Amino acid sequence: MNCSDSSARRTGRSCIQRFRCVAVTLAACTGLMLAGMIIPVNEMKAEEGMFPVSEIGRLNLQQHGLKMQADQIFNADQTCLVDGICRVNGCTGSFVSPDGLIITNHHCAFRAIQSLSTRERDYLNDGFQASSRTAELHAKGYTVRITEAYRDVSAQVLDAVNDGMSFAERTRAIDRRRKELEQASEKEHPHMRAEVAEMFTGKTWVLFLYTYLKDVRLVFAPPVSVGAFGGEVDNWEWPRHTGDFSFMRAYTAPDGSSADYSPDNIPYRPKTFIPVEPAGVKEGDYVMLLGYPGRTVRHRTSDFLIFEQQIRLPFVVETYGWEIRMLEEAGRQDRSVELKHSSRIKSLANVEKRSRGQLQGLRRAPIIQNRVLEEQQLQKFIEAEPGRREKYGTLLSDISAVYREISRTASSELNLGQLRSACQLLSLAWTVYDASVERQKPDLERETAYMDRNFDQTRQQLQLTLQDLHAPADLLILSAILQRLNATDDTDRAVELTSVLNDLAGNDASLQKLYSSTQLTNADFLTSCLQKTPDQLAALGDPAINVIIRLYPAWMRLRETDKKRDGQLGVLYGRLTDIKKEFQTAAFVPDANATLRLTYGHVKGYAPQDAVYKSPITTLKGLIEKTTGTEPFVTPDRILQMYKDQKFGRFVHPELKQVPVAILYNTDTTGGNSGSPVLNGHGKLVGLNFDRTFEATINDFGWDPELSRSIGVDIRFVLWVTGEVYGAHDLLDEMGVDHR
Amino acid sequence: MNCSDSSARRTGRSCIQRFRCVAVTLAACTGLMLAGMIIPVNEMKAEEGMFPVSEIGRLNLQQHGLKMQADQIFNADQTCLVDGICRVNGCTGSFVSPDGLIITNHHCAFRAIQSLSTRERDYLNDGFQASSRTAELHAKGYTVRITEAYRDVSAQVLDAVNDGMSFAERTRAIDRRRKELEQASEKEHPHMRAEVAEMFTGKTWVLFLYTYLKDVRLVFAPPVSVGAFGGEVDNWEWPRHTGDFSFMRAYTAPDGSSADYSPDNIPYRPKTFIPVEPAGVKEGDYVMLLGYPGRTVRHRTSDFLIFEQQIRLPFVVETYGWEIRMLEEAGRQDRSVELKHSSRIKSLANVEKRSRGQLQGLRRAPIIQNRVLEEQQLQKFIEAEPGRREKYGTLLSDISAVYREISRTASSELNLGQLRSACQLLSLAWTVYDASVERQKPDLERETAYMDRNFDQTRQQLQLTLQDLHAPADLLILSAILQRLNATDDTDRAVELTSVLNDLAGNDASLQKLYSSTQLTNADFLTSCLQKTPDQLAALGDPAINVIIRLYPAWMRLRETDKKRDGQLGVLYGRLTDIKKEFQTAAFVPDANATLRLTYGHVKGYAPQDAVYKSPITTLKGLIEKTTGTEPFVTPDRILQMYKDQKFGRFVHPELKQVPVAILYNTDTTGGNSGSPVLNGHGKLVGLNFDRTFEATINDFGWDPELSRSIGVDIRFVLWVTGEVYGAHDLLDEMGVDHR
Repeated sequence: MNCSDSSARRTGRSCIQRFRCVAVTLAACTGLMLAGMIIPVNEMKAEEGMFPVSEIGRLNLQQHGLKMQADQIFNADQTCLVDGICRVNGCTGSFVSPDGLIITNHHCAFRAIQSLSTRERDYLNDGFQASSRTAELHAKGYTVRITEAYRDVSAQVLDAVNDGMSFAERTRAIDRRRKELEQASEKEHPHMRAEVAEMFTGKTWVLFLYTYLKDVRLVFAPPVSVGAFGGEVDNWEWPRHTGDFSFMRAYTAPDGSSADYSPDNIPYRPKTFIPVEPAGVKEGDYVMLLGYPGRTVRHRTSDFLIFEQQIRLPFVVETYGWEIRMLEEAGRQDRSVELKHSSRIKSLANVEKRSRGQLQGLRRAPIIQNRVLEEQQLQKFIEAEPGRREKYGTLLSDISAVYREISRTASSELNLGQLRSACQLLSLAWTVYDASVERQKPDLERETAYMDRNFDQTRQQLQLTLQDLHAPADLLILSAILQRLNATDDTDRAVELTSVLNDLAGNDASLQKLYSSTQLTNADFLTSCLQKTPDQLAALGDPAINVIIRLYPAWMRLRETDKKRDGQLGVLYGRLTDIKKEFQTAAFVPDANATLRLTYGHVKGYAPQDAVYKSPITTLKGLIEKTTGTEPFVTPDRILQMYKDQKFGRFVHPELKQVPVAILYNTDTTGGNSGSPVLNGHGKLVGLNFDRTFEATINDFGWDPELSRSIGVDIRFVLWVTGEVYGAHDLLDEMGVDHR
Repeated sequence: MNCSDSSARRTGRSCIQRFRCVAVTLAACTGLMLAGMIIPVNEMKAEEGMFPVSEIGRLNLQQHGLKMQADQIFNADQTCLVDGICRVNGCTGSFVSPDGLIITNHHCAFRAIQSLSTRERDYLNDGFQASSRTAELHAKGYTVRITEAYRDVSAQVLDAVNDGMSFAERTRAIDRRRKELEQASEKEHPHMRAEVAEMFTGKTWVLFLYTYLKDVRLVFAPPVSVGAFGGEVDNWEWPRHTGDFSFMRAYTAPDGSSADYSPDNIPYRPKTFIPVEPAGVKEGDYVMLLGYPGRTVRHRTSDFLIFEQQIRLPFVVETYGWEIRMLEEAGRQDRSVELKHSSRIKSLANVEKRSRGQLQGLRRAPIIQNRVLEEQQLQKFIEAEPGRREKYGTLLSDISAVYREISRTASSELNLGQLRSACQLLSLAWTVYDASVERQKPDLERETAYMDRNFDQTRQQLQLTLQDLHAPADLLILSAILQRLNATDDTDRAVELTSVLNDLAGNDASLQKLYSSTQLTNADFLTSCLQKTPDQLAALGDPAINVIIRLYPAWMRLRETDKKRDGQLGVLYGRLTDIKKEFQTAAFVPDANATLRLTYGHVKGYAPQDAVYKSPITTLKGLIEKTTGTEPFVTPDRILQMYKDQKFGRFVHPELKQVPVAILYNTDTTGGNSGSPVLNGHGKLVGLNFDRTFEATINDFGWDPELSRSIGVDIRFVLWVTGEVYGAHDLLDEMGVDHR
């Protein structure tokens, strides 16, 4: 599924324009095109591109099937379609009523549904339906943001650096300047959230202003058997029969301002909302998506792709696969443990399978080969002219050298990272200790997660991690990781890690003691730790914190190395952008970077392999045929019965004579596009994006018009399940859908 | 894959006719139609039916695309196409040269290739190519039979029974009469093999006479990476990219008579051979197959189908799956162990996946539901007339009662069977002891395997089993089975088994001793045991034989129960055939029973599930795309290079511009059709059948025109691999294929 990878590093450049609402207050926002931006539409491969919404006027979308004016989608002066779009944590959502009702994917709301579920009150298994507004449940850790304005801040950012700086200093200076800009902007616009996004690595930055809502509630979720039908077996696959949708609602303080959860809060009133089209789509129809795609890396060099193919992706496939098996094993006997692990397994499995898809894509498609050819041509172009040769002659080989260095040390760095991310106890201890170190610094010099403006969120995430920690399973995993690390031949292993391995690997007694003695598993203790200094934490003598203190210098070196490499690559990619602009006249679409984008295409099938063609609309009949009664292919009795009775209401595809379940289209999406509205030519909601095909996972590296396809749940299935099957007619009424 | 299930029980009826060659000597062969045979062609569902070759004149095949006369395919007086077809163990083969060259599937020759392979001389991995006729290797345990004549013997068989007999006595009497008929016929025709096949359960029997060749040699096999490309992952799947072919050759004594292997033997001269069509087929073309389909059960009642769905198939899926995992685990460290287990794993996995396919089919398709409806209508028909009610009123419920009884005791019976079949040591001991008991009886009263005419074959199979036995793995399996059986709640467990379980289950010391003390793993000792009486075997004190002696009474009761049920069902199904003939005017095609049949259809794709369409010809390009370099998707470098160099010779599909690899067609096949020639309308070889699709495994129970598809390797791929890739131009020359 297409939820955004939070560890995304971004690269890209973009044109800027102002949004209507707060534009007047942004002095620098002049609506001009940046020189770096090239979108020669006629030369573009059809459907490739995640376009900044400011650019869509230039795309001539009517020629592809749009039935409205581009400025009805985005426009700086009036309410328009994009005002109905929001970001829900790492996903996208749409407002579908004047009362802040949001539709997004089931897998986007999954974390909320899971943490609200207990063995007795199993909303995950049984689904959830609020009987009234007051029965809507607070989704802890969820936030909603709505893009309100943006402006180019490249000059201000680059003003912070000079040639005398080391690469790490450069990274730090840019980082600090971004934070200063954000802070200044938020001071100017209280209740809003500012974020500076790097659009093209080392070249351009844009400051975005967001309305930021912190009281989000769960309104309706189908049973997980519907919302995640097909589970990991069908994930990243087509044909699909997953009802991957849920309803949430954003709330504000009674005065309409952003506020933390309170029973006194009232539903948020969006400037506009997306109208729902109960008639859905048919094959060949124009569709477009709005959303917050997280990250693509189509502008990286072949060295990066080779690093991904040979080192990072195989590491992810192997270690995540291993971790999933451990977690599943631990949950097999006990539903409450299974619930604790479900969200983590889901997210690990999602990345694991996507990585396999990307490996397959890199093997089959000539992406690396083509990138190498492009670079050879670029090199020729550089060497053809003495001035260029002087300036850029070693540029590509300099970039190669950085990736060579990254590759050399990758194995020990990835292992060090895994130790912290796979073991939940160490992960808690890490956050606590890292926070204590960082919180001693001035706010602007801290790592982002520990800045005052983010620390609440970090604290909530910490509590959620604790809630899902199952000590016996966590102990097993830690024990196994230590033994794996110990058995790995690693000449670059940090001395701190060697020392910890010597003490703990294979030492069951000490590990048992670690878990029995630590107090971090106590929520109050954990919270109290967040107030302490590093010295105070060290004085506690907590064994889990002590492990982190011992390893901390190794992670600090790693952090420093990352900053150095970011600085290096920032400078190099900035120069690469310059010379590529001279060289290249073809399409140059900015990479995704979690900012608002539009992508368009058509409802369309594809031929994923020799002798196989897949058509673009699946049906309830197919869902019933896939149902085995065994996870993940279970269908609630209520649906089976309604299928048998052919109770389809008005939500039937006119030719297929069935309720459509999912749709396929050739738009350009990536992680973060989960929950994106699939809109028809009139800007009406006909589906919810939730995934790509297995072959399209390679999208992140390069576009293939034959194979790049995205997957959405059909609005007719959403409405049928919500209204006909589970009787939530009030929601259909609220969306203005006539269901009689 | 479609190799025949040797445990097949047969049911069916058939018309008889004589074959040219020895017909004159078969006095009773009068060429008449049996009254029971109904083939009203116009009412038949297209393509359903495995027709006895004597019937094809009635099918009007020209209307479907046949370009020759039916009597060129089969004809009692002249050499015709069927004379070029043979049975190779449980598979079908075609003679493709005047010198007895046979083409069949790689998986049919697999047992030979495997047992000729060693770690040093790995024909399985590397492929095999005889440098000359003298270098062709003896395939131990392989026989070839060619159908020469047949006649109806129903009257003689039924003459052996009377109403006073018990059901078990009835089964024995029929069995004995069949053997007498076979013996008499073989006396009349030395060098030939006679076999009486039951065509319709309890109603009709036909005696077939076969030329029976015992010296079969391996001529050419591609590497297993080609011959079994896709392995168990792709088995029973389309699209397919498997080069599932091999060449063997039949030999005779210098005088042309059947003889055991001898270096002095000469190639067999078939009466005719099948011409090869290097131009292959295209989508929509007429194709027909000749072969020896093993067993279908389309005339059984719904009770049988429910028994399969609820009890037997789930048991197979679970226990076979478990056994496969054990065997794979044991082979992971040692290639020689892996080789020992490869054939067994392959055959277990084949049945396991087919059973899963059948379970899916029984769940999805309304086969059981339709059968129940038919039976309700039949029951109404029976009750509509007093005479019929009198005679058949309880017939269906009587059949139900038998299956209820079978279901009741199935679990303990299946477990008892598994103990013997999964543990190779006990399997050896069983055969040795059972032989000693049976061989004391007069020849005609023995179980078939121990009759003089079959005992050589049984002895050879025993040696092959020993060759594949890997004691440590076998011990682990036995230990695990005993513990599983012990943990199973089984109120019908035989007292003998309870006693053995008490002694051995969980008793590692005793099990270790069993394997360290037994001498059965010594080939000479094993052979010597086959000369001994039961008392002599008991006196040996061999612990493995002793376990069998303890359990033997339980198995004897089971054998007796089987005979009783066969007798019961024989009588009941015989009567069911009578009343169905009165009731039914629709198609009534005999079930497959391992006798020579023709089936026809067209090269055609299908839609196996919602939103998926599969077209009927795969290509070398698809094979390359599927190649991951990891088992089972490895492709030899030589093929990769020739693909890269586009060296396709003359074997290119004119529209696809690729070497075609596999083809799909809607003919009616089952196990035993492996290796069947796929013939075009001119009777020329365009492919080799080797499998069905996953959805078509349900064929055995009922035909579905939408889903029933069979899979063959395209002759162009066979010729390209053999000639272009591996340079065996002599074979292409021998087949008369112009490859320049």
